[in-house]
Amino acid sequence: MRNSSIFAMVAGDLALVEAELLNAIQTPVEMLSDISAHLTKAGGKRLRPALYLLCAKQGPTTGSDKISVAVAIELIHMATLVHDDVIDNAATRRGIATANTQWGNHASVLSGDFLFAKAFSMVAAKGNSDVLKILADVVCSMCEGEIIQIKESFNADLLEADYYGRIAKKTADFIAGSARIGAITSKMSPTDIQALHQYGYALGMAFQITDDILDFTSSAQQLGKPAGNDLRQGIITLPIIHALRDRTSGQQLKELILQRKMNEADIKQGLAIIHNAGSIEYAYNQVAQYLQRAREALPQSLDSSVRTALLEVADFVGIRKY
Amino acid sequence: MRNSSIFAMVAGDLALVEAELLNAIQTPVEMLSDISAHLTKAGGKRLRPALYLLCAKQGPTTGSDKISVAVAIELIHMATLVHDDVIDNAATRRGIATANTQWGNHASVLSGDFLFAKAFSMVAAKGNSDVLKILADVVCSMCEGEIIQIKESFNADLLEADYYGRIAKKTADFIAGSARIGAITSKMSPTDIQALHQYGYALGMAFQITDDILDFTSSAQQLGKPAGNDLRQGIITLPIIHALRDRTSGQQLKELILQRKMNEADIKQGLAIIHNAGSIEYAYNQVAQYLQRAREALPQSLDSSVRTALLEVADFVGIRKY
Repeated sequence: MRNSSIFAMVAGDLALVEAELLNAIQTPVEMLSDISAHLTKAGGKRLRPALYLLCAKQGPTTGSDKISVAVAIELIHMATLVHDDVIDNAATRRGIATANTQWGNHASVLSGDFLFAKAFSMVAAKGNSDVLKILADVVCSMCEGEIIQIKESFNADLLEADYYGRIAKKTADFIAGSARIGAITSKMSPTDIQALHQYGYALGMAFQITDDILDFTSSAQQLGKPAGNDLRQGIITLPIIHALRDRTSGQQLKELILQRKMNEADIKQGLAIIHNAGSIEYAYNQVAQYLQRAREALPQSLDSSVRTALLEVADFVGIRKY
Repeated sequence: MRNSSIFAMVAGDLALVEAELLNAIQTPVEMLSDISAHLTKAGGKRLRPALYLLCAKQGPTTGSDKISVAVAIELIHMATLVHDDVIDNAATRRGIATANTQWGNHASVLSGDFLFAKAFSMVAAKGNSDVLKILADVVCSMCEGEIIQIKESFNADLLEADYYGRIAKKTADFIAGSARIGAITSKMSPTDIQALHQYGYALGMAFQITDDILDFTSSAQQLGKPAGNDLRQGIITLPIIHALRDRTSGQQLKELILQRKMNEADIKQGLAIIHNAGSIEYAYNQVAQYLQRAREALPQSLDSSVRTALLEVADFVGIRKY
């Protein structure tokens, strides 16, 4: 299933978002517009703005305000990606050279700041403080999640609950916020706004767990970055936590992680332990449970076409391979 | 003259700002609150919130909203400082180890993002989109200014006008914005809001030129960082631009800069050229002109106590040595 089909209902708006993204990042400072254009053209799933637009579908809001909010959401996402790449020292993303590789860390940090500020400026221009507050808080949450990730790296004693807490901040809160803002735009009841928030939250948890699984199951080509990267960097994800509990080889995996410097043979061994312990299946089972929770959270009052689309988004997150 | 005396009129509010700053950065994520507390306690002149509070003095706004905006202004300033230190690879600021030295670049980038987002969240919570728009645009401007600075480094052909354009974006727009937001809070007329904006702008230009002068005239101890740092990093400031125009030794300075790697003897020679060419005096003369412009911009309708305070701020910027 391609994005274009699950997001068909908001395809027209998403096309406007693409055009507006390129407009929004215009600046007379060439290096800055080059970096921003590079980030925009690198594409991505546009999951967050699409989800916002779907949830906003029932609303009376005029077109331009809606598109601005969707653009702001994607700008914030782009800003976090460019800062993440600086932090991870990533050379490529989705197979394309990162901004930090092409323009250096300094310009990349500043471009991320610029994109954050541009996003807030766009929403502020529409006078929408509620939306602004949600987006600003989402950014705080993401920063907390990323800092926790730095602090928890190579911690082989990490609990599964700590992992969920971290990915909630890092990923799920933003996806929940995107759905919430959409529901607010649709002028839904407080209960339904909360329900779509819960849907987005559960979807976001499933999305991040899948991401963490794909790091072990995908080829470097599919990922656009080397596989086993999380293990190499000591980022303790759900499959690792599960495998660490394995009676047969958990201790062996722990010792590998505590080395802190794993060579390629170590990584290969680690991946084998994770696969043999059934940790991928375990993690996929958690994905399925979160997606079920997402589906069940959908409020009764939704237009049936919106409900169908949101169910399809959940299906998509469950089967995505990139 | 100490800050405490020029800002006496808003001393009570500034004390509240200090307390609220420490409150605002509270987060359960220890590393993040540690870094933020470090940045807060490192102090600083609190020029921007003080200026905002002075300009807001005539206004009817309730206390808590005013303090929130002042705190947000300082949080944004702190965020730019922590990112600047990452970008400049600075080891110390005001004589204290920088966040990047103590916690690493990654955590510092994230802390800066966190402080930006916290600032926007605080203003959004007060429902003040106008203020948010100004602050978000100021951040965009600062990013543009910093990127221009990276691009223009080691450019010995830089024009004086380019320098003013760069420091306007990097520094003056934010100080102008702080004054403007204060004037808006005071519910001044559009003309007076614009006048205080112009005051802040001219003050900001004078402030940055002074900063750039102090890099050549202060001791490492006074600066809290090595002197001649701008020359070393190829940041072409006003004294350098003036000295480059000098018939006797401009060419020699140009050759030093174009080397790109200056050793300590080169720096010493560069500093001597700048001092001998009268470039410090020239730059101080520009400071004086900007400060005069700032004083003249002050609107007639100001309360005389506010006017006196703002004139004193201009005097302070003219004589500051740190």
